[in-house]
Amino acid sequence: MDKVEKSKIIFQPSGRRGEVKKGVTIIEASRQLGVDIESLCGEKKVCGKCKIRIEEGFFEKYGVQSSKDHAGKWLIEEEKFINRGQREAGYRLGCCARVEGDLLVFVPEESRAGKQVVSKAARDIHIEWNPAVKYYYIELSEPTFKDPKGDLERILDHLNTKYSLSDLDIDYLTLKTIPNRVREGKWKITVAVWMDREIIRVLPGKRENYYGLAVDVGTTTVAAYLCNIATMEVLDTVSMMNPQCKYGEDVMSRITYHMMHEDGLAKMSGDIIEGINSLVTQACEATHPPKKGKKNNGSDKEEDEKMVQDKPYPCLTPSDIIDMTIVGNTAMHHILLKLNPEHMGVAPFPPVVHKSMDIKSRDLGIQINESAYVHILPNEAGFVGADNVGVLIAEEPYKKDEMQLIIDIGTNGELVLGNKEKLISSSCATGPAFEGAQLAFGMRAAPGAIERIKIDPETHDVDYKVIGRNAWRSYSEAKEMEAKGICGSGILDVLGELYRSGVILKSGRFNSKQKNSRFRKNSENNQPEFVIAWANETTIGKDIVITQKDVRQIQLAKGALYCGCKLMMRRMGIDKVEKVKIAGAFGTHVDREKALIMGLFPDCEIDNIISIGNAAGDGARAALLNREKREEANWVSRNVEYIELTVEKDFQQEFMEAMQIPHMKDTFPHLKGIVPDEILNQ
Amino acid sequence: MDKVEKSKIIFQPSGRRGEVKKGVTIIEASRQLGVDIESLCGEKKVCGKCKIRIEEGFFEKYGVQSSKDHAGKWLIEEEKFINRGQREAGYRLGCCARVEGDLLVFVPEESRAGKQVVSKAARDIHIEWNPAVKYYYIELSEPTFKDPKGDLERILDHLNTKYSLSDLDIDYLTLKTIPNRVREGKWKITVAVWMDREIIRVLPGKRENYYGLAVDVGTTTVAAYLCNIATMEVLDTVSMMNPQCKYGEDVMSRITYHMMHEDGLAKMSGDIIEGINSLVTQACEATHPPKKGKKNNGSDKEEDEKMVQDKPYPCLTPSDIIDMTIVGNTAMHHILLKLNPEHMGVAPFPPVVHKSMDIKSRDLGIQINESAYVHILPNEAGFVGADNVGVLIAEEPYKKDEMQLIIDIGTNGELVLGNKEKLISSSCATGPAFEGAQLAFGMRAAPGAIERIKIDPETHDVDYKVIGRNAWRSYSEAKEMEAKGICGSGILDVLGELYRSGVILKSGRFNSKQKNSRFRKNSENNQPEFVIAWANETTIGKDIVITQKDVRQIQLAKGALYCGCKLMMRRMGIDKVEKVKIAGAFGTHVDREKALIMGLFPDCEIDNIISIGNAAGDGARAALLNREKREEANWVSRNVEYIELTVEKDFQQEFMEAMQIPHMKDTFPHLKGIVPDEILNQ
Repeated sequence: MDKVEKSKIIFQPSGRRGEVKKGVTIIEASRQLGVDIESLCGEKKVCGKCKIRIEEGFFEKYGVQSSKDHAGKWLIEEEKFINRGQREAGYRLGCCARVEGDLLVFVPEESRAGKQVVSKAARDIHIEWNPAVKYYYIELSEPTFKDPKGDLERILDHLNTKYSLSDLDIDYLTLKTIPNRVREGKWKITVAVWMDREIIRVLPGKRENYYGLAVDVGTTTVAAYLCNIATMEVLDTVSMMNPQCKYGEDVMSRITYHMMHEDGLAKMSGDIIEGINSLVTQACEATHPPKKGKKNNGSDKEEDEKMVQDKPYPCLTPSDIIDMTIVGNTAMHHILLKLNPEHMGVAPFPPVVHKSMDIKSRDLGIQINESAYVHILPNEAGFVGADNVGVLIAEEPYKKDEMQLIIDIGTNGELVLGNKEKLISSSCATGPAFEGAQLAFGMRAAPGAIERIKIDPETHDVDYKVIGRNAWRSYSEAKEMEAKGICGSGILDVLGELYRSGVILKSGRFNSKQKNSRFRKNSENNQPEFVIAWANETTIGKDIVITQKDVRQIQLAKGALYCGCKLMMRRMGIDKVEKVKIAGAFGTHVDREKALIMGLFPDCEIDNIISIGNAAGDGARAALLNREKREEANWVSRNVEYIELTVEKDFQQEFMEAMQIPHMKDTFPHLKGIVPDEILNQ
Repeated sequence: MDKVEKSKIIFQPSGRRGEVKKGVTIIEASRQLGVDIESLCGEKKVCGKCKIRIEEGFFEKYGVQSSKDHAGKWLIEEEKFINRGQREAGYRLGCCARVEGDLLVFVPEESRAGKQVVSKAARDIHIEWNPAVKYYYIELSEPTFKDPKGDLERILDHLNTKYSLSDLDIDYLTLKTIPNRVREGKWKITVAVWMDREIIRVLPGKRENYYGLAVDVGTTTVAAYLCNIATMEVLDTVSMMNPQCKYGEDVMSRITYHMMHEDGLAKMSGDIIEGINSLVTQACEATHPPKKGKKNNGSDKEEDEKMVQDKPYPCLTPSDIIDMTIVGNTAMHHILLKLNPEHMGVAPFPPVVHKSMDIKSRDLGIQINESAYVHILPNEAGFVGADNVGVLIAEEPYKKDEMQLIIDIGTNGELVLGNKEKLISSSCATGPAFEGAQLAFGMRAAPGAIERIKIDPETHDVDYKVIGRNAWRSYSEAKEMEAKGICGSGILDVLGELYRSGVILKSGRFNSKQKNSRFRKNSENNQPEFVIAWANETTIGKDIVITQKDVRQIQLAKGALYCGCKLMMRRMGIDKVEKVKIAGAFGTHVDREKALIMGLFPDCEIDNIISIGNAAGDGARAALLNREKREEANWVSRNVEYIELTVEKDFQQEFMEAMQIPHMKDTFPHLKGIVPDEILNQ
């Protein structure tokens, strides 16, 4: 019997190491060892984002002789992303190189997934207190010969008499705890009841505070709000990169990953469940009171236990989390629940399920209280998911007179238009350009990312600012900038600035008549490009440029968004919206004026364009704290009319028009005075 | 390829029928069709237990011409067990007669294997069809752009429109199967709905037959009935010893085991769950169609799958079992569900729960369909459990005018008395003596067990019969008897005979004045004992005796039972019951006359004393096939008044009196003429 041959592999700078089966790709090895390497294309060898470097030599610490020769044969696909010099330095693509012998692999920062600092803070929205889980304190009489009824019946009778709760079920696992808990509490207990329907926890004594988690599973980011359900207070906000990013950056590439790998769905679902579990732990740990320099001895525990009962910041364990709500787009929803998402990828894009689901945490593998339910909010349609429903129940446009346009741009764009009379929704394929993906030097909002850009209309010189450094280029030495790429807000800037300074034309094409040192043709592919930062201002050793292709990507994104808004307004029979609400990280970062210049969405008074932050997460929180919001969510998910934009009349033409910069058509009176007339009239 | 020649065969009274290969023995045919015929000797043609009767004539209902000539040639071995008259009446031995043509076979009760302790056959009771799980066949339209709704919503809408089923939930694991199943079935599917409330299975295409298991968890024996829920037919009865027997014979010793061992409850629960799982497998395997000498190739599977859809005896797997009901006494109930049973062992004996529970099979670890519920019937009180509730919903005393006394003697004794006006219940600590346990030479009803005993009042000589041998001792050679011990029915005989022959006195003490070679003092402990079988008649190499302690055990058992009945009648304010129903194996074996002599229960017309077999199991089956029976069970469990006998006034005195043999007190007019006057007046 052959023994499986294995090789040692060490990843730096994380220091993760282990043995993997010979022949696996480095990406695969990184997954096995829990090292996150960027993989936008889902290992199709086309994005070049998974660049890593093989270090050569004997590494005594690990007893490993690493060599480029151990990384398998060079593939033709790598040529495109790795030049001769890099190749000699040991660079490979993680999806191409294979583990054929012991290796020490360096993962450059730009290839690390999960590096982004994601923060989705909870907004202060008004929520009525009416949670799905409620705690009831009861004092029971002890059994006697005259009244020898069972422990559960004793509890049920009391809940019925005192709180008019009748016909309650009990979770089987909770039932098992009853005989000991009631006696431990000397027949004084606190009972957690879910939806006036089922007992899901019995605790000895009186408990007043109890906890829940509202989770927003984004394609890129997962955020969770730990709430004290009793007081409605948000105790902590925790977030992380969606660990599925390693299977592909966007929804479609994850669906593709499922279709290409038999265990793809199980793997991706397992990863997000594990991710949520780590957020649960993280949120619980964050609630620990500061230790005040105390040693961690036995008495600590006692103190902590006491705090559970009367302090606002108690020491929580995952089993104290007694309710959870989850929002996410339909694909994230399906992958999380291990529902085959492939039919959602094909017209007419039917999801497996719309309605909200209440699933026992243990059935999902989510490690909160084992008897707790996880409430998954409903989907509207194949491409408008529970995250959008979350936005709606947070914003309640169906209760307003004014005509609102709600734009939620994450990795996908979702639009809702309407008021209390009618609501319609649609999705638009903005692609991830607004988030910096798929651009030559796009990156996420992380240290080194260019976030602000100004271009002098006269000289075409560029000034910019980088995340992690407070000074502009013009006030810095070149080498101080340490730029690495351009992130979402920089990308919005760049297109507006390129247009305003005349570097590109209304059509998006580079103005071939310009004369300046930054505009040039790429020496390799002969395509025009414009230099934002010179190599000596970067840590990546080359010029950061915007290519013609990049401009097109951004145009497509903004065109898709604008065209979507436009067609929805036509459907609704209106030519003006009263309010534009922008949800998501994009909304927080977007410069409303530039967005109008760019023609991202229809004209609106600037003061009526408002950012609503992570409204999807707010919706999840509302559903956690108010069960009527769950009904509202189901109602609205059924009553929003979904418009499939691509089959709308004129879609192609509208789309083409919307790609122009800016998108004038005399619908932007507010741009007068902001954009020079000669450009508007270009 | 030769076509296999087949004949039709019908077994009565079960009504089982089918085609079998010509030439097989009737025993073999019975096995193939799931009919139990006794076969102690393993078809060696020596035990004579498999007597059956061939019916002659044309049976229109089955289209069968049955004739003695169709049963193959008469064998010399049959002479020994079947006399000339019987032969003419059509009697044969099942192991000798062969199926040579169409046959209608009657299986006399004494040949039915169901009478053995570990086999509890299903009785023919009337049950209305209204199962908790129902199958619905629906044909869906495919999704289009006009109607792109989700797979689940498509199903829900259809079920609502066509069957008025609204607000259905769906089990999470079932939800996961939907996208593939609906497409596999080309949008024609069969949906299993539990309690008009939850979808628990979706299958492609049309399915009509579906299956459930009714389980009776006794302290000693576990029996399960595999039912076709669609047709209500019992496909198979399977049974086994309760694997917990290794932790203790009776309820209290198991509760003690839990209290003495930290993992005791988990172990005992694990064992019974595993036991139930093995019954599930066994029941499924028993439904496999005979392989007809075919090779086990791919096509077999296809054929089997086809049979699932339209044959009464399909090839089942555990995942095809879509519902389960369980009855058991309160301790078995608690141990199975891992509910701490220790408080039930201490006054006032409160159980953890009375009401019925619906628990997902996966939460219990029961390996039927993972989305199925297991319905656990409700308990009445700490010592009157769901098994007794099973008896009640099978017998329905609460619908009758007549005053019934229902006695369920397994390892514990449970009593119910009443009619439609009022029902009371109690439990009595009979101990396992009636089942042969705890006696010096007690054993279960198995080959070698002395099952009948006669004692000559003059000579005090003993004649007896042993299971596995049809002849009495007086007609046999000593060495032919091969006795091993005394089983339940023998034990009942022995006390009555010892008393009738004057070996013991009314008090239960041995009559020290008797002079015979069988009465003696044990050489070791000097206690009096009476020899039933001499060492040379046994396979155990020593005399089988009844000791004074044995007599006391039996007296205690009968005393507990009688005293229980008596006190309940007093509570009810009656001095006579109209009907006595005896459930359980004991009821099947008990000689009613001897039971009256012994004073097991109050006087009643002998014809009104009836055995109701495994009524607890029948109740489980009723609850499987009719959901209203579940409600009825909950109702009756709440409305039977439980009487704690031990705290009743006069309990001690009544108990002492009841231990006397017989228990006269002028309440047994029917014994006149049966028991000699001089003994009655002793």
